[in-house]
Amino acid sequence: MQHFRERAEALDAADPLAGFRARFAILNPDEVYLDGNSLGRAPHAGLERLESAARDAWAAGLVGSWKTGWYEAPLRVGDRLAPLVGAHAGEVAIADSTTVNLYKLAVAALRARPGRRRVVTDDLNFPSDLYALRSALDAAGGGELTVVPSQDGIHGSVEGLRAALGADTALLSLSHTAFKSGFVYPMDRLTAAAHAVGALTLWDLSHSVGALPVDLSGCGADLAVGCTYKYLNGGPGAPAFLFVRTDLQAQLENPIGGWFAQLEPFAFDLETKPTHDLRRFLVSTPPILSLSPIEAGIDLLLEAGMDRVRAKSVALTEFLIEMADAVLDPFGVIVASPRDPEQRGSHVSLRHPDAYAVCLALIEQESVVPDFRTPDNVRFGVTPLSTTFDELVRAVEGLARILEGETYHRGGRPSGVT
Amino acid sequence: MQHFRERAEALDAADPLAGFRARFAILNPDEVYLDGNSLGRAPHAGLERLESAARDAWAAGLVGSWKTGWYEAPLRVGDRLAPLVGAHAGEVAIADSTTVNLYKLAVAALRARPGRRRVVTDDLNFPSDLYALRSALDAAGGGELTVVPSQDGIHGSVEGLRAALGADTALLSLSHTAFKSGFVYPMDRLTAAAHAVGALTLWDLSHSVGALPVDLSGCGADLAVGCTYKYLNGGPGAPAFLFVRTDLQAQLENPIGGWFAQLEPFAFDLETKPTHDLRRFLVSTPPILSLSPIEAGIDLLLEAGMDRVRAKSVALTEFLIEMADAVLDPFGVIVASPRDPEQRGSHVSLRHPDAYAVCLALIEQESVVPDFRTPDNVRFGVTPLSTTFDELVRAVEGLARILEGETYHRGGRPSGVT
Repeated sequence: MQHFRERAEALDAADPLAGFRARFAILNPDEVYLDGNSLGRAPHAGLERLESAARDAWAAGLVGSWKTGWYEAPLRVGDRLAPLVGAHAGEVAIADSTTVNLYKLAVAALRARPGRRRVVTDDLNFPSDLYALRSALDAAGGGELTVVPSQDGIHGSVEGLRAALGADTALLSLSHTAFKSGFVYPMDRLTAAAHAVGALTLWDLSHSVGALPVDLSGCGADLAVGCTYKYLNGGPGAPAFLFVRTDLQAQLENPIGGWFAQLEPFAFDLETKPTHDLRRFLVSTPPILSLSPIEAGIDLLLEAGMDRVRAKSVALTEFLIEMADAVLDPFGVIVASPRDPEQRGSHVSLRHPDAYAVCLALIEQESVVPDFRTPDNVRFGVTPLSTTFDELVRAVEGLARILEGETYHRGGRPSGVT
Repeated sequence: MQHFRERAEALDAADPLAGFRARFAILNPDEVYLDGNSLGRAPHAGLERLESAARDAWAAGLVGSWKTGWYEAPLRVGDRLAPLVGAHAGEVAIADSTTVNLYKLAVAALRARPGRRRVVTDDLNFPSDLYALRSALDAAGGGELTVVPSQDGIHGSVEGLRAALGADTALLSLSHTAFKSGFVYPMDRLTAAAHAVGALTLWDLSHSVGALPVDLSGCGADLAVGCTYKYLNGGPGAPAFLFVRTDLQAQLENPIGGWFAQLEPFAFDLETKPTHDLRRFLVSTPPILSLSPIEAGIDLLLEAGMDRVRAKSVALTEFLIEMADAVLDPFGVIVASPRDPEQRGSHVSLRHPDAYAVCLALIEQESVVPDFRTPDNVRFGVTPLSTTFDELVRAVEGLARILEGETYHRGGRPSGVT
């Protein structure tokens, strides 16, 4: 490992983004945190924004704060986020949870494609998305969800998805970056394939936004949703975002009517009269305190630049995979993420039969925080603004120590939240 | 007004709840805040909980905090809230927004009553509820929303609602306390009437919870939703709550499938397998920061006791109406809330043709914060844990001064957020 240690030192010394680590509240600096793709760290500026939202806006400003920022916040922060996903102003809003947004947009898409009753997805998608898509089909009058098998549990099957698209397809919905393997779908090719059969596309960007450049507009994508508490560092359960391409906004209808979508919400009209723009996809009062830190995380990424973020992300995951091959392979560890960086997001999954027990041991014995993903994945997420190459060395060293010493409780099974 | 001033002084001196005012962060003590029924004040303990959630749980604990409280928070805080609405443990959860919860439960109710395609509500209901109920009918395959006219824009029509209920009614859904007039429906009688025709009931408790005792169990109510940022002081846009009576939980299905409803969310099963209990009505990751202050507001109300809260609320609104009659009547102000305290929640609406301009003048010239409700209501909300009798005197004095001097911009029309 000495060789890797030296390389890590040199890579960290040359890292143009190294200064960003100090922008986060890192209260346990000895802990190697590789789960920023589940919950991102807290930016100092995010905590400050939260405190201001609580003291200045809530406690002091009270209801008047709706007029001085809160009411516009869902669209204002959405506009701020837009460049991270290649969207235009007025195409991104903060609202609800990722799953609720996915449901809303999927129902809207299905109702805009009457006569087509098939939604196509794949088995790498986040299961909650599949539940929401089935629910959307129920709300739209029934239909079928086609779950295309991946190639090998790691790589999605672009050809399989193409083959599943047809004249009865209303919607293609995928996680752009798969939550387990980190596989990244070619958004441009699949969007074109969907459009070729007259279907719409709905992308879940949860594991992409802030981790790699996304170009919704360039790909001609129709709809998207995503999470703000992973690579955007918005805070636990921060409200999600949704994207609706400008020309679709007046065509699609939000299936959950609510006063925040109204042209004149304070007219309190008994009949719903939604706006014709993105606001129509809002429902109700947003959770302001949870929304308030999001902008700080976005601003850090904009300042760093997504090209530099992506370059460091690739360098980190390449380095991690190289170490895994060299050091962990003898212990039966298999890299379960794409080896081609073009097809890989910002996390690497390592398979081992005792992955769950190994994850617990990493946390308890090595102060390394990965994520376990059933049945046998140790998932290491790298977040370029705060993860160092040195941290990856320490993670691999820790993992090797545990596997070599077998200091984990073999056969330990997952229970509860991991 | 001297007489009222003296009475207010005596009433405040004798108020057993007076000490609770110091439990809130009141940063503009000279401001008379009568809009706690739109956004409740910030309890000191709520701000402390928020700061701990941000620093200790998010920044320091990171993803591990899901195991040490966050995952259970929606049901734990729901259990804490339950006594305020007469619910049992395991019947109340914190989730989503009031409107999204109303939609979820209305769709669930409609699907549980196949063949019945009518939802009954009234024109005192919060308009967002009507939008969501219409959306729910769409998702359940269509049907009709019957909007029963109130008696006079102030009092709901119990007889009109009874007459609208029939063999085709799936659901009766009302705001327990009307957002504009403050009229309170007899939950027991209307629930019995709905059950007599085989319909379910869905109550919006947004303007009731924390303002007056509610007895969902005693009334046999089926379903309810409500807001936590009004009388519960949970913070701007804090996530809402939902109530599903225990015996209905396994019968009704959440129409929006999501991983937080799963029996084993971390099994990441591609097929949805929701729990059979209340958790099945959750969807996805809750906004933890916005959720964190709610419990503090609930605890203050539990400590005060809802009987004492209600007694003070009635005394405050009675005092306010007495002053309005004596002092504001000559200026054309009409009390637009029920005069019978049994039929009145914790706010009083005063009608005046120039209500909007008068509201602006109250805020700007008198530091009195009411709420304007279209077309002609100045709404004064009293929140017994922090509102004083003296504040009501100052509000009426200020209102009289504005009306007498006509120091408002007559004809000023509402625009934007109020």
